[in-house]
Amino acid sequence: MKKSLHVFLLALLISISPAQAIAEKGRVAIAVHGGAGTMKPSRATPELERAYREALTVALKTGYAVLESGGSGLDAAVATIRVMEDSPLFNAARGAVFNSSGGNEFDAIIMDGDTLDAGAVAAIKGVRNPIELARLVLERSPHVLLVGESAQEWGREQGIEFQDPEYFYTERRWKSLEAARERARQSGIEFDPFPTQENKTQDKEAAKDFDPSGRFGTVGVVVLDRSGRLTAATSTGGLTNKRWGRVGDTPIIGAGTYADSRTCAVSGTGHGEYFMRYMVAYDICAEMKYQGRSIQVAAESVVMDKLKSAGGNGGVIAMDAQGNIAMVFNTPGMYRGYIDIEGKLFTGIYAGE
Amino acid sequence: MKKSLHVFLLALLISISPAQAIAEKGRVAIAVHGGAGTMKPSRATPELERAYREALTVALKTGYAVLESGGSGLDAAVATIRVMEDSPLFNAARGAVFNSSGGNEFDAIIMDGDTLDAGAVAAIKGVRNPIELARLVLERSPHVLLVGESAQEWGREQGIEFQDPEYFYTERRWKSLEAARERARQSGIEFDPFPTQENKTQDKEAAKDFDPSGRFGTVGVVVLDRSGRLTAATSTGGLTNKRWGRVGDTPIIGAGTYADSRTCAVSGTGHGEYFMRYMVAYDICAEMKYQGRSIQVAAESVVMDKLKSAGGNGGVIAMDAQGNIAMVFNTPGMYRGYIDIEGKLFTGIYAGE
Repeated sequence: MKKSLHVFLLALLISISPAQAIAEKGRVAIAVHGGAGTMKPSRATPELERAYREALTVALKTGYAVLESGGSGLDAAVATIRVMEDSPLFNAARGAVFNSSGGNEFDAIIMDGDTLDAGAVAAIKGVRNPIELARLVLERSPHVLLVGESAQEWGREQGIEFQDPEYFYTERRWKSLEAARERARQSGIEFDPFPTQENKTQDKEAAKDFDPSGRFGTVGVVVLDRSGRLTAATSTGGLTNKRWGRVGDTPIIGAGTYADSRTCAVSGTGHGEYFMRYMVAYDICAEMKYQGRSIQVAAESVVMDKLKSAGGNGGVIAMDAQGNIAMVFNTPGMYRGYIDIEGKLFTGIYAGE
Repeated sequence: MKKSLHVFLLALLISISPAQAIAEKGRVAIAVHGGAGTMKPSRATPELERAYREALTVALKTGYAVLESGGSGLDAAVATIRVMEDSPLFNAARGAVFNSSGGNEFDAIIMDGDTLDAGAVAAIKGVRNPIELARLVLERSPHVLLVGESAQEWGREQGIEFQDPEYFYTERRWKSLEAARERARQSGIEFDPFPTQENKTQDKEAAKDFDPSGRFGTVGVVVLDRSGRLTAATSTGGLTNKRWGRVGDTPIIGAGTYADSRTCAVSGTGHGEYFMRYMVAYDICAEMKYQGRSIQVAAESVVMDKLKSAGGNGGVIAMDAQGNIAMVFNTPGMYRGYIDIEGKLFTGIYAGE
């Protein structure tokens, strides 16, 4: 009887395991962010809040549909970022704030967790969807990071779509956003995402032209596709003072973005210099693989402990190989959302949601 | 008697400890590299070998003198890199190979292990000592990485020294180097540092204009100063195809360069894309701090195991908080040298030296 029970259990195990394995393999998940800052619920207009939640939802559903139909993580990540780049709500491509010289400069990156390969572009202008150019760098160039006009030229050779400056301005949408901003301004919202000493001056400048929609609104996505591949992608209109040719964390592997299908995928948003110095995205993965920490514990250790104590503000979305999601930020708010492996959809703006 | 012995031992302990602590504190060390590749002892000319060993020795002694006199790690690292940037033997500043459009583009970085702060520049032209500009970014800018013409402009505002293209060509020294190259060429040396599939074409191009002096000869330094501070710095004339605006690992924190006084300092040289994707410099430190590995074991794990099995060629110099030095490369050779905490000087070119 004892033996027959063993045989029965063994048979049960054999019959269940492959099915379970396939089910696990097939599970997909997606998380996005649209920037971190000091958004406060008491001060935002309902219209603006709703607009952000809707934009996050559309982005999530777009990427999720690609994943559900068996599409690759790369396709899902690019499709998701495109939605956010095309929206004037976020500081990426269309919607990026014009700098003093009247131009926009974009940075973008995509990293494939299966191959640890990546494509990134920095300080490029006029490209409709910088994330598409980043993907071309990944797929068609032997390099990882291309910058400036030369990168644009290469993109032109590859047939990437360019747009006039007017496109990025999006008069019609911008004006409706301006109206929402005006209402927000009148209600006295402050937007001071990086209240460190060195940023005092630039914060004062930023305050003059208050922009709750994401002057600092980098966008990012992490996905788990049906094949078990983790992918991360990030796109931004940058932070400040473009005349210096400043490059932030976004296009840097391991700083603002990282993906390794065996461990985790991360996309960050915040004070780029700190993300670079503390290698935020990779360090979360390093704590997981070297110290056996969970994605939540590792993300909190890096963002709430190391980064915050150094004076670095911002947040991350992170996903492990099982599709578990962590969304950790040390600012009062972060535009964010996910559709998890159970299919549950969530969007949030403020802490505690 | 037992008690008096205790008192005696306690007194001994008190009298020894501070002195020991000071001695430990006071120990300084320096290591440099001048690029990794397939140099082969059987094929090099004695003149060229001697020139490299001499250049490495001068660089080491320059930095060591700063450290011995109590200078900071930053001063020592910059002084050392300057010597190598000023030498036509290495592919950094003066000595960098002209690209197809007749220009040189430089990348450089310096990282302070006490503050985890860094300054870096990429794709800049005409700056006599790119490492000086990187230091200004560290000390005077709120940013970490500045690129292109905007970075040059900022440097000009800061009073950095520029030179005409002729300076970087260094007619006189270049001609004598060309003669040495011609001899080497006649003896049929091959220089194929990155024999991966994707580099076949560029290797063929490189072979046409054979350059044993370091078309891939990035220079780097790691130092431990009297205060116990670790500093790392790297400078390069870049790799290939500048028209694409390619940025490699050199100016990227954690990829080609990293320093944390509590753990280690690393400067790398090799196939930059792999160094970026595998975050070579930071990963060595991560294995040390998270897994308790020694600097030698960690450097071998990352360079000989992870990097090599991925197809990434190159090497690193690394130093831990006690001044222990590891010099690990998966290529046949790496221009390298050190003066250790005992004051012992070493220079090497080939593996096994």
